[in-house]
Amino acid sequence: MNGAKLQVKATSHEYPIIIECGCHKQVFKKINEYVDMKPSAYFIITDELVSHHYLTAVKASFPNTIPLYTYVITPGEQSKSFCSYEEVMTAALQNKLDRKSMIIALGGGVVGDLAGFVAATYMRGVPFVQIPTTLLAHDSSVGGKVGINHELGKNMVGAFHAPSLVLYDPECLLTLPEKEWRSGFAEVIKHGFIADPSFLNWLEGNISSFSNWDMNILTKLLRDSIAVKARIVEEDEKEKGIRAFLNFGHTLGHAIEAELGYGNMSHGEAVVIGMLFAFKLSEEYYGNELNYDRYFSKLVNLGYDLNIPKTLTAERLLERMKVDKKAHSQSIHFVLLKEIGEPELVKINEKDLYDLLQREVSK
Amino acid sequence: MNGAKLQVKATSHEYPIIIECGCHKQVFKKINEYVDMKPSAYFIITDELVSHHYLTAVKASFPNTIPLYTYVITPGEQSKSFCSYEEVMTAALQNKLDRKSMIIALGGGVVGDLAGFVAATYMRGVPFVQIPTTLLAHDSSVGGKVGINHELGKNMVGAFHAPSLVLYDPECLLTLPEKEWRSGFAEVIKHGFIADPSFLNWLEGNISSFSNWDMNILTKLLRDSIAVKARIVEEDEKEKGIRAFLNFGHTLGHAIEAELGYGNMSHGEAVVIGMLFAFKLSEEYYGNELNYDRYFSKLVNLGYDLNIPKTLTAERLLERMKVDKKAHSQSIHFVLLKEIGEPELVKINEKDLYDLLQREVSK
Repeated sequence: MNGAKLQVKATSHEYPIIIECGCHKQVFKKINEYVDMKPSAYFIITDELVSHHYLTAVKASFPNTIPLYTYVITPGEQSKSFCSYEEVMTAALQNKLDRKSMIIALGGGVVGDLAGFVAATYMRGVPFVQIPTTLLAHDSSVGGKVGINHELGKNMVGAFHAPSLVLYDPECLLTLPEKEWRSGFAEVIKHGFIADPSFLNWLEGNISSFSNWDMNILTKLLRDSIAVKARIVEEDEKEKGIRAFLNFGHTLGHAIEAELGYGNMSHGEAVVIGMLFAFKLSEEYYGNELNYDRYFSKLVNLGYDLNIPKTLTAERLLERMKVDKKAHSQSIHFVLLKEIGEPELVKINEKDLYDLLQREVSK
Repeated sequence: MNGAKLQVKATSHEYPIIIECGCHKQVFKKINEYVDMKPSAYFIITDELVSHHYLTAVKASFPNTIPLYTYVITPGEQSKSFCSYEEVMTAALQNKLDRKSMIIALGGGVVGDLAGFVAATYMRGVPFVQIPTTLLAHDSSVGGKVGINHELGKNMVGAFHAPSLVLYDPECLLTLPEKEWRSGFAEVIKHGFIADPSFLNWLEGNISSFSNWDMNILTKLLRDSIAVKARIVEEDEKEKGIRAFLNFGHTLGHAIEAELGYGNMSHGEAVVIGMLFAFKLSEEYYGNELNYDRYFSKLVNLGYDLNIPKTLTAERLLERMKVDKKAHSQSIHFVLLKEIGEPELVKINEKDLYDLLQREVSK
């Protein structure tokens, strides 16, 4: 598979996702081709690591005559802060961006979330384009969720603001470190678990390492994983129903990330632990067998650690889950699987949850 | 007129505006009656002045068993800051508000804009109810524009987030100081100028002071003025076309406010000067007579000063207008009137604008 195009219907507008080797060198051309407006200026938001690899090529794709500005943030979750948010707004105003200016998010999830929230709220909303440069961002760049963190919780401040275009260049992933592949691949396999067993089996047969990629395999992986996400967010953009299924593995995953302090374990590594826990909870809840071991032993081969870190306690993890923003009135909901590919959102009895957590933590 | 109800269609949902004497004492009942959801908790955001007059009564309208929290901000424009925004978010998280919690903005435009922006972005959006307590807020509480200021410009950061209900108690206006009446009445008369000549004439015949109100007169004034605003925002929520007409008098008005430093002249007092300027510019542009003197001499009787403050220069005002967020590619657009009730958005030649400004400033 040499390239792919998906189309996503958001409430506000429809937008294309282009997956194409080399497309980060044709950003201006692709925007012209796929976005139906003539921006007054372009504002690229990126981070120090990504700018080192790709900013020159992206900028070179624009004619000299076009007003083009850049803002480079510090890499990492700490840049999804109120402080960075205000700084980027200041830069946008200093560059005299107006309501017809376009923001371009060049980077991973942090850049996309922050730049997207700036786009959502600069002068009450300007268009933006996502150019994801990590595997994890294949997930966050689709669906319009943007935002920043608060010290009391991740992604607590944000908006729904769909991009005008997502430009995915698989070649940009080749510079990713192993840990980043693991972080993103958790969401890929999650999409298989909740919605596409045949994709799951294809992954099992085709992915045995995160190096020496065949670009056709990587393109298909991206396309099929994004297709699951796109289908779900189209049906339920504002997360009133089935979009919650994307939270599979995330209830405990977020709690682990938060308890360890963000950045100490990658998002996807925490989500894999959370998915394994959700499988166990599902078997308890529905009383059936889900035969998930084969998938998780492959994940171990890919370098994942499946155990809840020893420093964490069941009490603290439970407390974290109660303040998760997906909680309602402080009761805890979990995405469970009746079968692979059949998710359900279930309100979980706190005592049962505590007992299973206690057993897993003290393993 | 004893009370009134208007219905506004926003893109996201339809919401009612209730104008009714005494309704601030029935907030819980009215929310139950008009909003189709059962909030998990309520979070009232108000300021020190308004809380002094009305918070006790509003809170007393809720049963004791309902989770009800309050956050009181410092009155005034300086509270529409990144700092206050983050503080209110912190309070919301500390009170463990979830996505089904409701925010209640009790106050004037500052409270409404800040609380509305919190509602728009807390966990990517929660419902909110506006309880305007100033005349000016009759304008800002309708139409879903919410936001905060940046030191480089007013309302530069924000969103569109329609309220679930607007509850207007005309009795709450009776504690307003004269200056506040002037600030709000500018928007009332603006609605007459741009869209409703018969309402304009009714105002001319019925409003000769801002004291000793007949509540029927005040209710009709609110209803008719809100009706103009509601009709325009229904047709053009995202300000792609006719909503720009609401900006009549605001291009220069905003520049004057910004140059003087916010808070030194009320919004409406600056807008009245801006409207007079826009009338003069309209006559120059279209070459006809608009006979606006009679309205402005009534405004002088109501205490308005029609002159651009002597400390301001044409150069600085022009520079300000170029960075206004309604500017595109730094060219200046003005709402002009072909006739009273017939607005048009016009791109203005910078030299002509400068010349008229220069004449007005040096009067």
